[in-house]
Amino acid sequence: MTTGVRRRMGVEERRRQLIGVALELFSRRSPEDVSIDEIAVAAGISRPLVYHYFPGKQSLYEAALRRAADELAARFQEPHEGPLGARLLRVMGRFFDFVEEHGPGFAALMRGGPAVGSSTTNAMIDEVRQAAYVQILAHLGVTDPPARLELVVRSWVSLAESTALLWLEGRRIPRAELELQLVHDFTALAAVSAAYDDEVAAILLGIVAGEPADGPLGDLMGRLASLLPRVPAQRVP
Amino acid sequence: MTTGVRRRMGVEERRRQLIGVALELFSRRSPEDVSIDEIAVAAGISRPLVYHYFPGKQSLYEAALRRAADELAARFQEPHEGPLGARLLRVMGRFFDFVEEHGPGFAALMRGGPAVGSSTTNAMIDEVRQAAYVQILAHLGVTDPPARLELVVRSWVSLAESTALLWLEGRRIPRAELELQLVHDFTALAAVSAAYDDEVAAILLGIVAGEPADGPLGDLMGRLASLLPRVPAQRVP
Repeated sequence: MTTGVRRRMGVEERRRQLIGVALELFSRRSPEDVSIDEIAVAAGISRPLVYHYFPGKQSLYEAALRRAADELAARFQEPHEGPLGARLLRVMGRFFDFVEEHGPGFAALMRGGPAVGSSTTNAMIDEVRQAAYVQILAHLGVTDPPARLELVVRSWVSLAESTALLWLEGRRIPRAELELQLVHDFTALAAVSAAYDDEVAAILLGIVAGEPADGPLGDLMGRLASLLPRVPAQRVP
Repeated sequence: MTTGVRRRMGVEERRRQLIGVALELFSRRSPEDVSIDEIAVAAGISRPLVYHYFPGKQSLYEAALRRAADELAARFQEPHEGPLGARLLRVMGRFFDFVEEHGPGFAALMRGGPAVGSSTTNAMIDEVRQAAYVQILAHLGVTDPPARLELVVRSWVSLAESTALLWLEGRRIPRAELELQLVHDFTALAAVSAAYDDEVAAILLGIVAGEPADGPLGDLMGRLASLLPRVPAQRVP
């Protein structure tokens, strides 16, 4: 039966199957804990045949990462319509879908480690970060970002990564809340930068101007406004 | 001359010297581009003698990282006196001193890669992150942090790392500005969390209550306040 299936699969088809099997295993356990033997068993083929398609675990790992990276970058695609806060919130939903689906594989990848920290894998991770950066600038309608805006966007991308990693560790906060929080965090980091940079201020004010009062940013501002009046009361012990 | 020096050095002294030489070389070039030969030449000893003290480059690298990690964690120490914003700003100054002193070594370490991404090095990096986390909680006077405060502090630590890495890449923004911005970013991330969590709100209001108007947080609030009145004007094109 296995042999019959094997005969019918072409090289590309078999490679795709093995990548799929590896990603499925990496979604439940860290790649360093998954052996080529297990991948062979799960794919229903022999260990030597796995090596026929992928010369080693690292090459299979890199092919799996390539597919995952392309898939994640595709999820950043979002129509340029409607308020920016809602767009970013939808992307965050798809990002956390990805993080949840890939679980341990995502965590192992982002945390580096012996099985994964090669210059090839690092380059692929940087590519996904760059894709996120480019998408955000496109949505902001900015082609030549000032240094401080570049910093806001790139450091927020890194914040989204670390927030997702912290979520995976214990899932102590519901993911829907973190998705919304990351949208707020973006605005908060941009506001800090805007306080010191007129160019970033103009971009931020443009974003805020297009936000409905009942959107994710309107909601945050309402809540912050209700928080602020409590400050003076605290100043007097 | 070299032989004379060698005779006088004990094992621990020689190991310390080699670690110092390695850190000095890593501060100018990435560890993966520095060979044991270069370290031997810079230390004035033979290559085999380096291997006598450190069985391989990885073990010398890990010893160098151990010293750097301890040194960085020591810089997080800050007296529990005065407004929190100013305390954090002083720590940020020492953090950027460290980043500047170690340059390429810091970047290579934090970005992972073939020479550095072992479970030992990752554990040391996590130890420094944990030290930062513990210090911040101690300054906030919190012993049992709610999940959302833990997330704010840990994700801010990661933000500080990525901001420093982005700074090293091109140094397009003066470091003093980034040190201040990170203090503001902490407040901004805490404010986002406070908007949805009463416990975090109480902690944030406690911080803000102790801040002088001319401190880093007072300055930010003044600037944000002057930015906000421009929002309604932007809403009407």
